[in-house]
Amino acid sequence: MPYSSWFQCIDPECPERMALTEIVYTCPSCDDLLMVAHDVDALKNRSGAAWMRLFDDRYMTTQFPYGSGVWGKKEWVYPQIDDANIVSTYEGGSNLFQAIRFGEMIGVEDLWIKQSGNSHTGSFKDLGMTVLVSAVQQMIHEGADIRAVICASTGDTSAAVAAYCATAGIPSVVLLPKDKVTTSQLVQPLANNALTLALDTDFDGCMEVVKLLSEDKRFYLANSINPLRIEGQKTISIEIVQQDDWQTPDWVIVPSGNLGNITAIGLGFQMMHELGLINKLPRLVAAQAAAAAPLYDSYKTGFKEYSPVHAHGTQATAIQIGNPVSAPRAIPILQEFDGVVEQATEDELSQAAALADSTGLFACPQTGVALAALMKLAERSVISPEERVVVISTANGLKFPDFKTGYHSETLPEVTAKLANKPVELPGDYHAVAEAITKHAG
Amino acid sequence: MPYSSWFQCIDPECPERMALTEIVYTCPSCDDLLMVAHDVDALKNRSGAAWMRLFDDRYMTTQFPYGSGVWGKKEWVYPQIDDANIVSTYEGGSNLFQAIRFGEMIGVEDLWIKQSGNSHTGSFKDLGMTVLVSAVQQMIHEGADIRAVICASTGDTSAAVAAYCATAGIPSVVLLPKDKVTTSQLVQPLANNALTLALDTDFDGCMEVVKLLSEDKRFYLANSINPLRIEGQKTISIEIVQQDDWQTPDWVIVPSGNLGNITAIGLGFQMMHELGLINKLPRLVAAQAAAAAPLYDSYKTGFKEYSPVHAHGTQATAIQIGNPVSAPRAIPILQEFDGVVEQATEDELSQAAALADSTGLFACPQTGVALAALMKLAERSVISPEERVVVISTANGLKFPDFKTGYHSETLPEVTAKLANKPVELPGDYHAVAEAITKHAG
Repeated sequence: MPYSSWFQCIDPECPERMALTEIVYTCPSCDDLLMVAHDVDALKNRSGAAWMRLFDDRYMTTQFPYGSGVWGKKEWVYPQIDDANIVSTYEGGSNLFQAIRFGEMIGVEDLWIKQSGNSHTGSFKDLGMTVLVSAVQQMIHEGADIRAVICASTGDTSAAVAAYCATAGIPSVVLLPKDKVTTSQLVQPLANNALTLALDTDFDGCMEVVKLLSEDKRFYLANSINPLRIEGQKTISIEIVQQDDWQTPDWVIVPSGNLGNITAIGLGFQMMHELGLINKLPRLVAAQAAAAAPLYDSYKTGFKEYSPVHAHGTQATAIQIGNPVSAPRAIPILQEFDGVVEQATEDELSQAAALADSTGLFACPQTGVALAALMKLAERSVISPEERVVVISTANGLKFPDFKTGYHSETLPEVTAKLANKPVELPGDYHAVAEAITKHAG
Repeated sequence: MPYSSWFQCIDPECPERMALTEIVYTCPSCDDLLMVAHDVDALKNRSGAAWMRLFDDRYMTTQFPYGSGVWGKKEWVYPQIDDANIVSTYEGGSNLFQAIRFGEMIGVEDLWIKQSGNSHTGSFKDLGMTVLVSAVQQMIHEGADIRAVICASTGDTSAAVAAYCATAGIPSVVLLPKDKVTTSQLVQPLANNALTLALDTDFDGCMEVVKLLSEDKRFYLANSINPLRIEGQKTISIEIVQQDDWQTPDWVIVPSGNLGNITAIGLGFQMMHELGLINKLPRLVAAQAAAAAPLYDSYKTGFKEYSPVHAHGTQATAIQIGNPVSAPRAIPILQEFDGVVEQATEDELSQAAALADSTGLFACPQTGVALAALMKLAERSVISPEERVVVISTANGLKFPDFKTGYHSETLPEVTAKLANKPVELPGDYHAVAEAITKHAG
């Protein structure tokens, strides 16, 4: 195998290098975040055109593991891993949906929505978790005494950890604050046999416990600080370009909370650019819920200042994060990509999701944030009508029934549900029904 | 275009033939069900190997509409339709998941689960609805005065009708019994802008109204009686074989209520066999909920007798059907495929789903019925350990949160939840957590 990758410190001055099978989450020298680096010179031995052909040959085939959208790009993700240790549920390959009617409504003619929530556990987190759990399999195979994969999470991360560990037969443990999560948030990890610990503390308290636990190498930490997940999520941008016959969009809009995903998407575009698959970079938009928008505040200062905030309640629970762990990774990426940060209120994100739904989508609240950001940028002509825009839909709307029913029953706080659609009660009688339909459909 | 297809009566003696753009649901001569027939001689001008190559060349590409799992087989589905009228959300291409751990647990070593619920609206119904709504677009384009697509449905059908119509900009109308459906069953059609009529009658009353309505050609009927949907669903079997490098499995197990899907799957295999893509047929298993098992009762008589039953309550609401509309289509198919019918109680279907979930799946209750049927047939050695088995998972488990939470909180009626997994409450303290994990994970 001529390709290789390793952990290194995000500080370019720091010389630390570690194998991806090391159980390590921050730099042992300076405690900074880690990133995965690749031997780019080795990757350059294959031309951009040759990479494109290789990726196309594998795309969505049944050849294990290369039919997976992540592992079809294995050389760019984790080249050294043994195929036998890969734990995959055929990630990626989700539809790049051309939102023709929605685009017409908002004056963005060339609009595409990447349906990442159409996935094994219903969110883009599968893309990263297949890499992390496969790495754990590799570590175990090489003799590491790992007893469980652990995380503190109330949502998509715990679902993905539990499902991938269950597929592999590795124990998983999910920590969450007692009384602050609903049974429906718990149901995926419970069903996938995770040990689910409800702690008498808040979410920050859970994070503290999980960090302490991870000092014991038998408990492998799956939270966002772990850079392996970013390597899988990076394939979103490669797949977007591949699905559009290797053309780069003008804009990519990403719901942004912990900032790992926008980092990953930026890294994917950088790598394609450096290796000659694309000639230009898109502009990136980080879309934040107004209730939890520390990056937006920083953007307003030209990224000169940055400080965590207290996150308020939002329907977009997956990005309700006041102190994003990947901020130091994401800010340089946004600067390089001439990035924009936009925010959306509860009313804006809910209306945007409802409008998109009326054209055939079923947008989760985080996707609502991204769509609302798009509408505001189009309204202000930051995004022009003819530019090609890709919005990343991060989770399946089916995960958020309360958001949907709340909107259409007009019970969401801070939201005036202009598009609320309610059942119409009628007698069980042909004539009454025919009249109602004729009135509705003309 | 050398290929053609048309409606004909399922009675082989009846000479009725009609264009697929005719607004007709039963045979005008004898009132029997209709089916779609194809010019098989024309299709035979291309060899089996050439069809396989064509389908492989198109599979999951971005070339509209052929990247869709349904429209990649357009010549076998609806050859005459104009591509411009096709309403697609990139159906099909769902993972054929190798259930290694679950298979080991139940003694079926070569077990695969077709994840059809990983789809735009979360169920296999998308496969048929893309054909039906595209046909409506074609009819409108040819001048038909269709004002709305209508259906009576409490679940997946209404979701698919509403989403595809919203994508196309065609009004849709969903009829359902007042007070008998939950808001969460309504949320997809409401979000997708369907006129949702809650009638003061039961489900049969809704069906009567919708049938009366469909006598007016302005209201196009999308219920299962419409044979266009079967043409799309037929591609499930082609895709299963294609995903396994054109090998035919020994068994295909299908959750069965209205019997349209098992009919479609049988027709797909028949067509592949007749056109030389496969040399053998699999055996089919129709898996019914014991609460609604008229086909199982008929099977016990060697299909000599058949009569509708009163459907009792079941978690598997999508197959809670006592009088399946496609029984006359399905029984001959089952006879030809040396078919088996099996049933599963509430306890059996729930345990099977929970066991599968503990190995990384997230099975809907209908899939639970199919998995329970598999376990019973393996136990009785009807299915041998080395045979290749494909189970059709028809819907996304995320659509059934009450089934999942009910199981793990041990509140499902008639179910002893042996695998219930509950959150463990602990103080927010490192030592308590470390002890709990060590105890759990060894």
